[in-house]
Amino acid sequence: MMKSDSWFIEVFDGGKVGGLSFQVDEVLFQGRSPYQNIEVVQNSFLGKVMLLDGLVMLTEKDEFYYHDMLVHVPMACVEDPENVLVVGGGDGGSVREMLKHPSVRRVVLCEIDGMVIEAARRFFPSLSSCLDDSRVEVVVADGIEYVRGCRNEFDCICIDSTDPVGPAAGLFSTEFYSHVRDALTEKGAMSAQSESPAWSMEEVTSIVRNMKNAFGSVHPYIFPIPCYPSGLWSCTVCFRRDRNPVRDFDRQRAALLAKACKYYNADIHTSCFALPNFFRQAL
Amino acid sequence: MMKSDSWFIEVFDGGKVGGLSFQVDEVLFQGRSPYQNIEVVQNSFLGKVMLLDGLVMLTEKDEFYYHDMLVHVPMACVEDPENVLVVGGGDGGSVREMLKHPSVRRVVLCEIDGMVIEAARRFFPSLSSCLDDSRVEVVVADGIEYVRGCRNEFDCICIDSTDPVGPAAGLFSTEFYSHVRDALTEKGAMSAQSESPAWSMEEVTSIVRNMKNAFGSVHPYIFPIPCYPSGLWSCTVCFRRDRNPVRDFDRQRAALLAKACKYYNADIHTSCFALPNFFRQAL
Repeated sequence: MMKSDSWFIEVFDGGKVGGLSFQVDEVLFQGRSPYQNIEVVQNSFLGKVMLLDGLVMLTEKDEFYYHDMLVHVPMACVEDPENVLVVGGGDGGSVREMLKHPSVRRVVLCEIDGMVIEAARRFFPSLSSCLDDSRVEVVVADGIEYVRGCRNEFDCICIDSTDPVGPAAGLFSTEFYSHVRDALTEKGAMSAQSESPAWSMEEVTSIVRNMKNAFGSVHPYIFPIPCYPSGLWSCTVCFRRDRNPVRDFDRQRAALLAKACKYYNADIHTSCFALPNFFRQAL
Repeated sequence: MMKSDSWFIEVFDGGKVGGLSFQVDEVLFQGRSPYQNIEVVQNSFLGKVMLLDGLVMLTEKDEFYYHDMLVHVPMACVEDPENVLVVGGGDGGSVREMLKHPSVRRVVLCEIDGMVIEAARRFFPSLSSCLDDSRVEVVVADGIEYVRGCRNEFDCICIDSTDPVGPAAGLFSTEFYSHVRDALTEKGAMSAQSESPAWSMEEVTSIVRNMKNAFGSVHPYIFPIPCYPSGLWSCTVCFRRDRNPVRDFDRQRAALLAKACKYYNADIHTSCFALPNFFRQAL
């Protein structure tokens, strides 16, 4: 059914099919940074929505699926994480989740685009207000450069990036992942969003291959996210010293976290690594 | 981004947000049965798409998620299922999956709308050609009436219905589920699609409550399906004599099935019952 001009459709890749579509009740913000177009719009069902270059980055209704799964899966695999880093993720959602782990003493957020942080501070306080926590350092810089300068520093690094095009393309290279590995402590874990297995399997396998080149072994996992194209998404976790993320994780901490999470719990932690046949076969 | 008039958007419930959206390359069929409007359209990314009353029922690209999970989860929980029934499911996809179980000797498809079967036979041979299998009986009748007439007859019954409005509303009542229970053999299992936990939790809990009234215990499970609103869907399995679907299933058969399935495998069977916190809390 065709709707009126107030409808937004995220046009997916080839332009034949849409990601999320919704009625725009109000445009709250439009800005152009050196890196991208940034918009914040309102929809009565989804809440506020952040768009970067016309792609949905987050909705208030759905952001918990993504931030829970990007952050808690690697964090629960690391014994008492203290120093942790988010690359990208200027909205603050990933930082907020990291702070739920009681051992965390320092969170660095390295976001290239200061305007994303400003827009988040203004329109998404439930995500960004964590950035005022005394344990958080906000660095506005290129994550690639930042990570290159770190050695044995972080117990967990979450790559909370946009798609592998434009400013974020370098965040998906073997070279970058190698620098992430070196920036991890011996017990450390990295996670990164790795695109949709349903609609972008070629991108997924390319990302996973680059991680494998840098880390040796990789562990993709899946979860739903209604506001991204296809609704089925993946992240991938890698360890400096290889571990089994299904067996080797802090089940007690996972159970405690579940009280503060809408999606993640200990059973989800293990089940998200059960991959459909079509995904197994593509790896 | 707004697209031209050749775009279809499935308008979800309140009309503020869309389900699947896509460019209609060609309208292949439009019909009006006594029950609903039936359309078949072509999209180069999704393949052929069947719409009932303007809602996406299946796409060639995605139907495997749904049919794998509606059928193999209950079927793998029943020892050597022989006589099985699909209520609804006129496209044939659920029947096709049931026939993959080697013990099956008789599949009854009870679909109220003969025009759905005709459209599937004409445009979706990869789903409907199973209906010519000698083990299959096609009954064009009201599933509610049909099930009421059966006692201790079926080892597995899959309710492959549209949403709980219009002609399908009766397929979600406690009364109907009680008749399904009586139509099952002692070892029997029922599964039914039970809507989206992401966007329709009230409907999910209402369905699950009605099943509980009829069966005593119920086991909801989740899986992705890109072509349905939100991309996150649920089915629920119930047993005449209660079983634990995570522990009590035929793992060997599940492993064999995985060779013929794009989604389902033994690990998926157990992991699909790990529910997010928001779903657990709502039950």
